[in-house]
Amino acid sequence: MSSPTIASTNHQIRLAQRPVGAPGRECWSFTEEPVPHPAGEGDVLVKTLALSLDPAMRGWMNEGKSYIPPVEIGAVMRAGGVGVVVASNNPAFAVGDYVNGGLDVQEYCLVPGAQIKRNGLFKIDLRMGTPTQWLNVLGMPGMTGYFGLMDVGMPQAGETVVISGAAGAVGQTVGQIAKIKGCRVVGIAGGAAKCDWVVKELGFDACIDYKAGPTSVKDGLKQHCPKGVDIYFDNVGGEILDTVLTRINRKARIIICGAISQYNNTTAVQGPKNYLSLLVNRARMEGIVVFDYADRYHLAIAEMAGYLKDGRMKSKEDVVMGLNTFPETLMKLFNGENFGKLVLQVATD
Amino acid sequence: MSSPTIASTNHQIRLAQRPVGAPGRECWSFTEEPVPHPAGEGDVLVKTLALSLDPAMRGWMNEGKSYIPPVEIGAVMRAGGVGVVVASNNPAFAVGDYVNGGLDVQEYCLVPGAQIKRNGLFKIDLRMGTPTQWLNVLGMPGMTGYFGLMDVGMPQAGETVVISGAAGAVGQTVGQIAKIKGCRVVGIAGGAAKCDWVVKELGFDACIDYKAGPTSVKDGLKQHCPKGVDIYFDNVGGEILDTVLTRINRKARIIICGAISQYNNTTAVQGPKNYLSLLVNRARMEGIVVFDYADRYHLAIAEMAGYLKDGRMKSKEDVVMGLNTFPETLMKLFNGENFGKLVLQVATD
Repeated sequence: MSSPTIASTNHQIRLAQRPVGAPGRECWSFTEEPVPHPAGEGDVLVKTLALSLDPAMRGWMNEGKSYIPPVEIGAVMRAGGVGVVVASNNPAFAVGDYVNGGLDVQEYCLVPGAQIKRNGLFKIDLRMGTPTQWLNVLGMPGMTGYFGLMDVGMPQAGETVVISGAAGAVGQTVGQIAKIKGCRVVGIAGGAAKCDWVVKELGFDACIDYKAGPTSVKDGLKQHCPKGVDIYFDNVGGEILDTVLTRINRKARIIICGAISQYNNTTAVQGPKNYLSLLVNRARMEGIVVFDYADRYHLAIAEMAGYLKDGRMKSKEDVVMGLNTFPETLMKLFNGENFGKLVLQVATD
Repeated sequence: MSSPTIASTNHQIRLAQRPVGAPGRECWSFTEEPVPHPAGEGDVLVKTLALSLDPAMRGWMNEGKSYIPPVEIGAVMRAGGVGVVVASNNPAFAVGDYVNGGLDVQEYCLVPGAQIKRNGLFKIDLRMGTPTQWLNVLGMPGMTGYFGLMDVGMPQAGETVVISGAAGAVGQTVGQIAKIKGCRVVGIAGGAAKCDWVVKELGFDACIDYKAGPTSVKDGLKQHCPKGVDIYFDNVGGEILDTVLTRINRKARIIICGAISQYNNTTAVQGPKNYLSLLVNRARMEGIVVFDYADRYHLAIAEMAGYLKDGRMKSKEDVVMGLNTFPETLMKLFNGENFGKLVLQVATD
């Protein structure tokens, strides 16, 4: 490709204050500064093409210890993304290379040479997937789904796997892998359109619309999981987790990947009041953080790219244009409005 | 020994109604019937010496599915116990043999030949432990503690193990095994007397008195678990579980053995609102039911009997005399009044 152009100004979105409840526009400040240029040895300047918007971002906005430190007030908001190298002092990265890494919510990201590994910056191969697929099934959500299901869930052919947030980035990956591994797969998603898509396009055996009524999840599990639930991949927490706990089998595995229903709570998180079902059923509830599997990402990516190529896996992204739409676009996640992996397109090549 | 005498009347305690909240005397009926005699092939008549009173009994009194069926209204209350064979049509059990099994809350138990295995009846060796020790560290509580700690907790030397209900039957076993396995062991118990005993007699590194004040558990964990908590063996649930969840380490294991703080609730069980600590810490919460390990009881019993013999393990029982005290004696568990394994002595040889 021809050498990409570099603008003079880098627009950025910074965390202005920590949210109470849902993060509104007041939480963000819109800043600009000159685009930095690689000066030190090993430095790489990346032009952001697309950013991954994830439920986990809500946690990063809170003060206090989590699996990674919070974003500091005044810092550019943390985000993973794909981009193209526009300047480089690093022999491992050439101008024109497509890359994936921690680019943050801004148009350009200068990754210092000493930070390349910590940033997670790596070259992506567009023959394996499109840039947005590299943020979805080939990216963090895909890795989360893959290792959560395979390493914690340990699915056996014939088992029943239930997935909340089934139309989301992680959910779609988990369900499709579980199908490939020979499981019965039942999704839970909000609205008929998502449920239809999960069944018709992704090939889940069924999908329960949790918005269809107060007993829809309970009734749906009874109907669609006649042999009970062996694996539950939970992205949502709250009432849905509690309902699934009433339907688990002996030695069931519950993967705690997230709890999006609880992230904007201004009161305490709702604990699973049916957790003693773990005792009765000798079942396990276990958390997963994708970073733990970094040394095996390449294996999972290769497997998933194969499924994308042979058509056994689909990758749906919900792409919204424009850096400045970030605050409202992020809220789509918490309102359940995204349909597929939520991506913020910042620039085209 | 000389052939034991057999009375003519068998006093029994039956479940009269299902409790709402704490089970009072109104839940029980006191009945008597002639002592049955072995008639069928393989039948064994056992005279009860001592019964094991356990928190799990509260669950058996409820209607509805659990890990074993509920006790039917009008049935003799289910209980494990030790006794002596007083009549036998079974070549495997001779008059005078001491046995352990499901004897129920009554003076005599006729175990039909076809039910021997289902009843779990087996001969005990008094050289390995006293009859009440066979209800404690060599019995179900001991097996629960042993397999819960070893198979689910998988302790490594140097790890920190926290145990609630530390002075109870399961807790004392877990803590002593964890010490033998080289762990730092911190108990949680109610009252200074129990805590002193746990440290001075059982050799725990520390014991936190949860009754000492509203922040005693939080403060105690901070003080006594400077390297965090690797394994938490939970017998109580509720606030204590939630507090421990704030102190767990990466890859921690939480063994859900019981939740005695919640058993007499008339409202919903309190779910662990800090369960997302499992996610942040990639930790696991897993239930245990001792029956799953029946084929390995003999191995654990042999190991524990060795520890009893060489003095590395102590076995404390809280023995209350008299079948008819059963309703009030059982309540000691829920009021935290028992000190050691609670045993109801029904007869002496």
